[in-house]
Amino acid sequence: MNYPTTILNLIECFKKFPGIGEKTAERMALSTLNMEEDVLNLFSKSLKDTKKKIKKCEKCGSLTEGDLCQICQDETRNRETLCVVEECKNVILFEKIGSFRGVYHVLGGLISPLEGINPEDIHIDKLIDRIEKDKIKEVILAIKPSVEGETTALYISKMLEGKEVTVSKIAHGIPMGAEIDYIDPLTLEMAIEDRRAIS
Amino acid sequence: MNYPTTILNLIECFKKFPGIGEKTAERMALSTLNMEEDVLNLFSKSLKDTKKKIKKCEKCGSLTEGDLCQICQDETRNRETLCVVEECKNVILFEKIGSFRGVYHVLGGLISPLEGINPEDIHIDKLIDRIEKDKIKEVILAIKPSVEGETTALYISKMLEGKEVTVSKIAHGIPMGAEIDYIDPLTLEMAIEDRRAIS
Repeated sequence: MNYPTTILNLIECFKKFPGIGEKTAERMALSTLNMEEDVLNLFSKSLKDTKKKIKKCEKCGSLTEGDLCQICQDETRNRETLCVVEECKNVILFEKIGSFRGVYHVLGGLISPLEGINPEDIHIDKLIDRIEKDKIKEVILAIKPSVEGETTALYISKMLEGKEVTVSKIAHGIPMGAEIDYIDPLTLEMAIEDRRAIS
Repeated sequence: MNYPTTILNLIECFKKFPGIGEKTAERMALSTLNMEEDVLNLFSKSLKDTKKKIKKCEKCGSLTEGDLCQICQDETRNRETLCVVEECKNVILFEKIGSFRGVYHVLGGLISPLEGINPEDIHIDKLIDRIEKDKIKEVILAIKPSVEGETTALYISKMLEGKEVTVSKIAHGIPMGAEIDYIDPLTLEMAIEDRRAIS
């Protein structure tokens, strides 16, 4: 004997998610039996809606249910400062801090010759167009400091050479509250190189 | 800005599952955007069905979509040997091995005075009734060797004292393929106590 079909289907569905194996999927499928009807109905409805309702903002590429995302619609944002990020979820992360009042551009990936991701596969052309069209004055590259991240940052800054726009990238260094003893040598090297005058 | 409502709802739903925190729920909700329509529809339907269709077998307490589970309906099973387990998923585990040809009884929990679970809160009365009514000859207690498990096993065997039924419990000892060096002292003690003649 095995589980009834509905449970087997749920186990298969949960296994499609990243990082969810057989055992976890089984546990999750069984725990739906103890959930409230309301939660299951909302869950069921949201899964049906997700592909239909969620689009990417025409301007910046963030997730939205309309044509433009809330940030691109917001008249109070500084539209001359553009923060370039890899993924949609990075936008939400910066928004949670709340101190950045400019607008965003989501690349949807990073250049990676090893994985066959070339500059034309991510939204770099759209970024360059937008910088010219919207008269952006400052571009902040908020991309992770990996090989792919550095390659992408370098490529974008080369493309913007000679244009009237300041290009910067977010600081890499020691995280707040960290013990210096436990920081890797590359980060320490970066932290010394990018040192900043105190007064 | 935050995620669109549909994504926020999905994050909340995923967070209701055991062991799923904020970050994992966020990753799971976002990955629905890359899933195939078919998978999402099946997922959505199964979540709606799970509470409506899945019942507990009237006889043994396993999960089923009918009144009786496949095992209780199966005429070829040995109905005189009963394997007592804690949860529905234990039945599936034993069935995967396939060597046990008797029937099961799911307790739906273990006696735990600390958590306020008394003998009457789990299906022990039903078990005793069933043993008498179905003329069960052998009861195998397949319960985990914890304080709660041992208490429950002891309680059941006391209740069956004087009745014409053999009661046994599954062997505790060193798992196959394990290094003896890494086994805890209690398991080693059990393994020596429950030693078995080779020939």
